[in-house]
Amino acid sequence: MNIHDKPKSLRPESVTQGPMAGSRKIYVHPDGRSDIAVPLREITLNPSANEPPVRVYDASGPYTESEPAIDLSAGLPRIRDPWLARRAGLDFYSGRPVQPEDNGSVSPDRLAPPCPANTSPRKGRDGALVTQYEFARAGVITEEMIYVAARENLGREAVLEGAEAKIADGESFGASIPAFITPEFVRDEIARGRAIIPANINHPELEPMIIGRNFLVKVNANIGNSAVTSSVAEEVEKMVWAIRWGADTVMDLSTGRNIHNIRDWIIRNSPAPIGTVPIYQALEKVNGDPTKLTFELFRDTLIEQAEQGVDYFTIHAGVRLGYIPLTAKRTTGIVSRGGSIMARWCLAHHKESFLYERFDELCDVMRAYDVSFSLGDGLRPGSIADANDRAQFAELETLGELTKIAWDKGCQVMIEGPGHVPMHKIKINMEKQLKECHEAPFYTLGPLTTDIAPGYDHITSGIGAAMIGWFGCAMLCYVTPKEHLGLPDRDDVKTGVITYRIAAHAGDLAKGHPAAQLRDDALSRARFDFRWEDQFNLGLDPDTARQFHDETLPKDAHKTAHFCSMCGPQFCSMKITQDIRDEVAAMEREKGMADKSAEFLDGGGKLYV
Amino acid sequence: MNIHDKPKSLRPESVTQGPMAGSRKIYVHPDGRSDIAVPLREITLNPSANEPPVRVYDASGPYTESEPAIDLSAGLPRIRDPWLARRAGLDFYSGRPVQPEDNGSVSPDRLAPPCPANTSPRKGRDGALVTQYEFARAGVITEEMIYVAARENLGREAVLEGAEAKIADGESFGASIPAFITPEFVRDEIARGRAIIPANINHPELEPMIIGRNFLVKVNANIGNSAVTSSVAEEVEKMVWAIRWGADTVMDLSTGRNIHNIRDWIIRNSPAPIGTVPIYQALEKVNGDPTKLTFELFRDTLIEQAEQGVDYFTIHAGVRLGYIPLTAKRTTGIVSRGGSIMARWCLAHHKESFLYERFDELCDVMRAYDVSFSLGDGLRPGSIADANDRAQFAELETLGELTKIAWDKGCQVMIEGPGHVPMHKIKINMEKQLKECHEAPFYTLGPLTTDIAPGYDHITSGIGAAMIGWFGCAMLCYVTPKEHLGLPDRDDVKTGVITYRIAAHAGDLAKGHPAAQLRDDALSRARFDFRWEDQFNLGLDPDTARQFHDETLPKDAHKTAHFCSMCGPQFCSMKITQDIRDEVAAMEREKGMADKSAEFLDGGGKLYV
Repeated sequence: MNIHDKPKSLRPESVTQGPMAGSRKIYVHPDGRSDIAVPLREITLNPSANEPPVRVYDASGPYTESEPAIDLSAGLPRIRDPWLARRAGLDFYSGRPVQPEDNGSVSPDRLAPPCPANTSPRKGRDGALVTQYEFARAGVITEEMIYVAARENLGREAVLEGAEAKIADGESFGASIPAFITPEFVRDEIARGRAIIPANINHPELEPMIIGRNFLVKVNANIGNSAVTSSVAEEVEKMVWAIRWGADTVMDLSTGRNIHNIRDWIIRNSPAPIGTVPIYQALEKVNGDPTKLTFELFRDTLIEQAEQGVDYFTIHAGVRLGYIPLTAKRTTGIVSRGGSIMARWCLAHHKESFLYERFDELCDVMRAYDVSFSLGDGLRPGSIADANDRAQFAELETLGELTKIAWDKGCQVMIEGPGHVPMHKIKINMEKQLKECHEAPFYTLGPLTTDIAPGYDHITSGIGAAMIGWFGCAMLCYVTPKEHLGLPDRDDVKTGVITYRIAAHAGDLAKGHPAAQLRDDALSRARFDFRWEDQFNLGLDPDTARQFHDETLPKDAHKTAHFCSMCGPQFCSMKITQDIRDEVAAMEREKGMADKSAEFLDGGGKLYV
Repeated sequence: MNIHDKPKSLRPESVTQGPMAGSRKIYVHPDGRSDIAVPLREITLNPSANEPPVRVYDASGPYTESEPAIDLSAGLPRIRDPWLARRAGLDFYSGRPVQPEDNGSVSPDRLAPPCPANTSPRKGRDGALVTQYEFARAGVITEEMIYVAARENLGREAVLEGAEAKIADGESFGASIPAFITPEFVRDEIARGRAIIPANINHPELEPMIIGRNFLVKVNANIGNSAVTSSVAEEVEKMVWAIRWGADTVMDLSTGRNIHNIRDWIIRNSPAPIGTVPIYQALEKVNGDPTKLTFELFRDTLIEQAEQGVDYFTIHAGVRLGYIPLTAKRTTGIVSRGGSIMARWCLAHHKESFLYERFDELCDVMRAYDVSFSLGDGLRPGSIADANDRAQFAELETLGELTKIAWDKGCQVMIEGPGHVPMHKIKINMEKQLKECHEAPFYTLGPLTTDIAPGYDHITSGIGAAMIGWFGCAMLCYVTPKEHLGLPDRDDVKTGVITYRIAAHAGDLAKGHPAAQLRDDALSRARFDFRWEDQFNLGLDPDTARQFHDETLPKDAHKTAHFCSMCGPQFCSMKITQDIRDEVAAMEREKGMADKSAEFLDGGGKLYV
């Protein structure tokens, strides 16, 4: 059942708040910058562990504070305002008046109110430093860069030596992950175009985050409005719920009535970057007829959304007229909505795409608000059969061409990728993207590694996502169990986000990210010590872990029992191992273990030789 | 809630029966062998598809026939009896008398009845051909080999050309998958030790299947008895449920009361090979004290279970005394139950393992019934921190040594593997196993690619399973969402099996298995054509797919609607693509498409150059 089909009494009147189980939100201050407060989550361990709390990345915003003071009408604290106020290149201005069609021409009685927290928009001046890319190229370290550097480091200063060892342990396929992230490293990566901080100057509520191959792998969750909306809180809740479970960015793919005003509420209350696909709204403004789209209408929609504070736009500027025939023989044609809309336009007019031809003018809008490009893969494969075909790669080459133009214009850029790709064809996607797109960050949907499991596409795609994250993909767009079948409900969104957090973390581990394994190790020790609560709380979803455990062994006493329901006390290998460990330790004290192994092996000889 | 906590009225009095949605069971006969009937499942497509039914592998046994005639007391049809009757090396004999301790010394009022379908056991004669390995080495093709050859081919004779193209498409890392599986190919693979057909001569009800790198990747599901058993049907149901969703083999990890008699019921009614870990039962016979185990008791337990028809035994003969100190510094010590039991014994007695020292005598038992070895990885890593350490690899080398001994004795062998391994350390496991164990089939648990997601370990491990299946692992032991937390219920078993079917299939696809992609392509075409019912039925779980779809669009009319609830009719990229395809086709008819692309691209020139 979709959440919106629920009786009104079950619909959220407010948003989910309060800390994650066993955790507390903390804020750390980068050296010398007490004015910058970077959120982390600290998981407290049982005193018997004799271990410090484990610090983990936290994308959930103020909603997970112990006593959150949330007022959706007021929006989140505008933490970037002091930073933005000091930038000479930004000016407030009146902004574009909201048009009835911005809200899908909704009738007045159904109009959602605008968010009272709205203020006049800012805009960047020509020739001044406006985007993170421009600052980085000019050698200037912004507050956003300082912020993300601290955020990426978690608590790993404390475990330096171990951390360095971990780097050597991974296989990063040419990534350059340092032991510690410094603001200067962040600046350098952004200047090279290898990372972006999606941070619209009109999204001062943002807690900045970075997307790039040499940083932690990130996860995006998609949300969309519903036909029947009972309250703006319900729409904001979708974003709050997704970031609670670990979404680093949220794409709002809404269409229809009230989307402008609801987007306001979402952005004013989102600590995470918000992405959109503006062509969806543009299409609504021409009543759903792709052939009626114009460059002017599209640009106006970009400005509309940029003034609201959208942090990145998916723009399918690589769908060129000449590539469309390449899709005609495909098993599943064009499956990207934006791609098919633009293809329809190109064919109807027999003209090159206006997004491609006038890309430089789009860049001018993007730069003025520091909206990052997410260059859309409108020709991504929609099936295993179509993976890595000429249409897909032709577009990728064009995206590389557009990347350089965007950089020349001062914009931040990432590149979207597939889609549906069997395992043996994933790596070439990453390699080709790095080469063709000059190392701009890659942002893929999955990929799904098989098409035979509708209802389980979070898993078919989680496999591909983990692999491409390892190979160098910077952000993974989640897929929920409802993919291809219906609209995800709350449970689906949570399952999708957690599956993708697994994929991202597995990728970080395999790349040898210096801080990644600390959490695995802490959880493994908790498991071995039968610290059940610690095991739950160190996991990605403490609530579900606890619930699963309690189904079989609900008693509180079992939370410290030195066995679990799977094997019972007699059969517990961990218990036996504990005995073995004690025994070996005793022998070690007795006579030294250095050659114990060799002695036991009778001189290392093999049987039957 | 565990199934066994359910009120009695909810407990199955019989087992799940009837066909999978949209499918019918068929039996095909290998050329010239009308006496051999090999099961397949045929998925019928909507007539509008203009496509033949899709044939898929079917491990579910007679339970999924249209009108199954199941009588648990009678057991399944003994299809192998005529084959076995013709083998000169096999004799019936009275067998070992059942002892009270075989059933956990259960009190008479609680004793589960033996299965009435039981008959006297067979035993192989010394010097005669008994095992599939011995037949294969002697150049003899058995009925089991003919059976599995037909089973592996599915319907791919019909699609020869496409199939050959698919092989070239994969990356198999040195596997040798032919376009068609012949009985001679099967024989040769078994003779080389690269594949096994686990097929105890006392399991005549078996529908033979093959485990090897050059065949379809297989999936094992574990089941176990419950403390409170209301009926034998309930215990048999666990096996039936697991194979319904696609488990190729089932391991019965039961302990405690009635295990001997319940095992009878399971085997008599199982078309899938049954595996066990005999040390569990042996340990119960010494009241749970590992130090009291003896070789004689263990061998007697092997004979007990071999006479019942268990098809493969996990035996942890590679846990040598000298390796135990190697585990003392591990984060999670020894996590294999069997491994920890044997380690305890070795340390307590300060002696080499009797399983290792008297391995040749174990081989004599295994050979006499053609029970396959599944050489257990008693020292597998239990955490990311312990992956690929010296203890693990030392044991693997010993398993290679034991493999040669088993082969010399005429036995079939596969090798068990980890466990918990980050992605970048998975491939070396496969490579080292192939090298050290002389290409004997590898059978891994997962591996889990991270430890931070208790409650989602089907996913953390499904990622690793897909990868190692691609790299060459022959069978994947499933992990359920309850792993590390509690006992899986029906839903967990289904989720685990389907996750692993995804992993196995993703592996087959990536290896370039000639028949694998046929199903993906059929489903993708159904998706593109909006044949919703076909899309559900071609999936691994038609019921869940249909349910997810119907949550948003329940009306029957929507089953043929040319859009879905995710985008709605206006936004449907597939619909737009259909229009594009029609348009391109029209243009093609007009003037030929060969140079259409080039023309559209204005001579292929790039913008801004």
